[in-house]
Amino acid sequence: MDANAQPPIPGLRVLVTGGTIDKIYDAAGGRLGFERTQVLEMLRQARVALPEDCVQTVLLKDSLELVAADREAIAEACRASVEERLVITHGTDTMVLTAQHLAQTVRGRTIVLTGAMVPFSVSHSDALFNFGFAIAAARLLPHGVYVAMNGCVFTWDGVEKNRAAGWFEETPLS
Amino acid sequence: MDANAQPPIPGLRVLVTGGTIDKIYDAAGGRLGFERTQVLEMLRQARVALPEDCVQTVLLKDSLELVAADREAIAEACRASVEERLVITHGTDTMVLTAQHLAQTVRGRTIVLTGAMVPFSVSHSDALFNFGFAIAAARLLPHGVYVAMNGCVFTWDGVEKNRAAGWFEETPLS
Amino acid sequence: MDANAQPPIPGLRVLVTGGTIDKIYDAAGGRLGFERTQVLEMLRQARVALPEDCVQTVLLKDSLELVAADREAIAEACRASVEERLVITHGTDTMVLTAQHLAQTVRGRTIVLTGAMVPFSVSHSDALFNFGFAIAAARLLPHGVYVAMNGCVFTWDGVEKNRAAGWFEETPLS
Amino acid sequence: MDANAQPPIPGLRVLVTGGTIDKIYDAAGGRLGFERTQVLEMLRQARVALPEDCVQTVLLKDSLELVAADREAIAEACRASVEERLVITHGTDTMVLTAQHLAQTVRGRTIVLTGAMVPFSVSHSDALFNFGFAIAAARLLPHGVYVAMNGCVFTWDGVEKNRAAGWFEETPLS
Repeated sequence: MDANAQPPIPGLRVLVTGGTIDKIYDAAGGRLGFERTQVLEMLRQARVALPEDCVQTVLLKDSLELVAADREAIAEACRASVEERLVITHGTDTMVLTAQHLAQTVRGRTIVLTGAMVPFSVSHSDALFNFGFAIAAARLLPHGVYVAMNGCVFTWDGVEKNRAAGWFEETPLS
Repeated sequence: MDANAQPPIPGLRVLVTGGTIDKIYDAAGGRLGFERTQVLEMLRQARVALPEDCVQTVLLKDSLELVAADREAIAEACRASVEERLVITHGTDTMVLTAQHLAQTVRGRTIVLTGAMVPFSVSHSDALFNFGFAIAAARLLPHGVYVAMNGCVFTWDGVEKNRAAGWFEETPLS
Repeated sequence: MDANAQPPIPGLRVLVTGGTIDKIYDAAGGRLGFERTQVLEMLRQARVALPEDCVQTVLLKDSLELVAADREAIAEACRASVEERLVITHGTDTMVLTAQHLAQTVRGRTIVLTGAMVPFSVSHSDALFNFGFAIAAARLLPHGVYVAMNGCVFTWDGVEKNRAAGWFEETPLS
Repeated sequence: MDANAQPPIPGLRVLVTGGTIDKIYDAAGGRLGFERTQVLEMLRQARVALPEDCVQTVLLKDSLELVAADREAIAEACRASVEERLVITHGTDTMVLTAQHLAQTVRGRTIVLTGAMVPFSVSHSDALFNFGFAIAAARLLPHGVYVAMNGCVFTWDGVEKNRAAGWFEETPLS
């Protein structure tokens, strides 16, 4: 397959920020960490013709370690994107916080945050499914900020992570 | 994770028909074939709370071997589905033919056909990505029949498989 | 394949003590840890007819956390084994220390310690290779205590882990 | 890890002849076939410092398709090898026939044939285990011709494949 010849997907950009989805095993340190993003490998495996320059590493961090400046850097990358449709790979623990920040600081974009409960590099990972799901959502949804996990898509203001259970669910009305 | 407690996805059904996506290695025969569908395992790995009785095996065949009665069995399963949104896993070689048959014989449903170039059971498979992509498409698109492959979604009447290249693309206007 | 019908391997026992080889991803905690041994799954995948009761979990620990009583428990399991040939799965960091303790406290056994630099549950793991290598070594070597890693077998008194490089090598003569 | 710096394994050569172990999925053709050997990737994954020029592709064939000239080419590669210890990756169906030919035409070598019931490129493969097992056997056994499968090592004149069961076993005395 000559991926260069496949008609490229237009209008889509992937922003990488780290999170479980992108962790790989560091044999020297004996633990999972960040070295480089796995997103290009995921796209190749999925046979998706997204141009390489449409995959942009903003950060490579555990989402528990994100600070306000990191969230603003993600927002700035969204605003700077020529492409209107954005998938953001992100740690699950503070994904909703970043979604809230983006909803308040970015306009004119369809933004879908996704991640994984198990790293792409580990057996039985949900990464590839979530990533495919998020790309479809980003291509089909109107402008707005969304979270796509577990085969569900949530608007930024109606979702929370159920940490004990290990999934995302709708925020109940208070 | 207790998958039973996760709010189940409503209104979605997966129809299994076989195809490369579902082939597994038969060590006795020394070749890839069908034994049972891998779709439930894919859903479990993706941590998607689709009830098991919403995954229905209609056929387990190479799509080159599908006959008219098989396509009609798929159409009948679509019409019989209480769920309005359907993902159909299918071989890629005649996926477009089945899409055409469904477009002519089923109404009132969102139907998304998907498959894989590499079986789910083989390294570096595109199956999980395509399946996630297709589920998102089925949840978001209006009634109609679609093909979802390579990170793209096509309407049934505007797509063809480029066999030499190994991907799906829009049919040029004649 | 009916594994029960295959002539079982006689005279071999596997002792599980934990280590990187046996770590699996804990999605709730977001890290690698121990839950149950992967050794039975490794044997099944390898189509090796070792009876299940010849796989014995002595410990499930990171080898940096082993204390003297743990090493003595391993030694005791070696002495108690009816089978003369023993493979011990073990963390790499203190594998040599355990080998030394066994050499001083067990007689009449062929003992081969092995492990992995990357867990069996992570992509591109060396676990299955090392495990196969160690089982062959245990079946072929005379009584004594050995370390089997990287496609090499070392006697207990002539090996050290090169932590910076990530492999085992012969101790130079001083 | 800098594999170049690791002390290389001396005296060992791997001869590649094809077989199930080395089959990879051909997405265009929709079937498993041969393209290039996976043995170097297996060695890298296993962190084994065998020099690349000690891996030699003699053939890439299904072992049912081997003819007398192929077996003689394998024998010739054994005789030409500077290294005394040889692992031969081979299809399982006629592995015993090749072992018999080598026993009659090569002297002064330790030759271990191995293969897999499931290709290295397919999930849950026994390839890496068998390959590790065979390398240990080749390093430890005296001159002679052996078959290493299922965690067992057999001499060339005392083994047969039990095709129905999917494993190798000792030939009963007649």
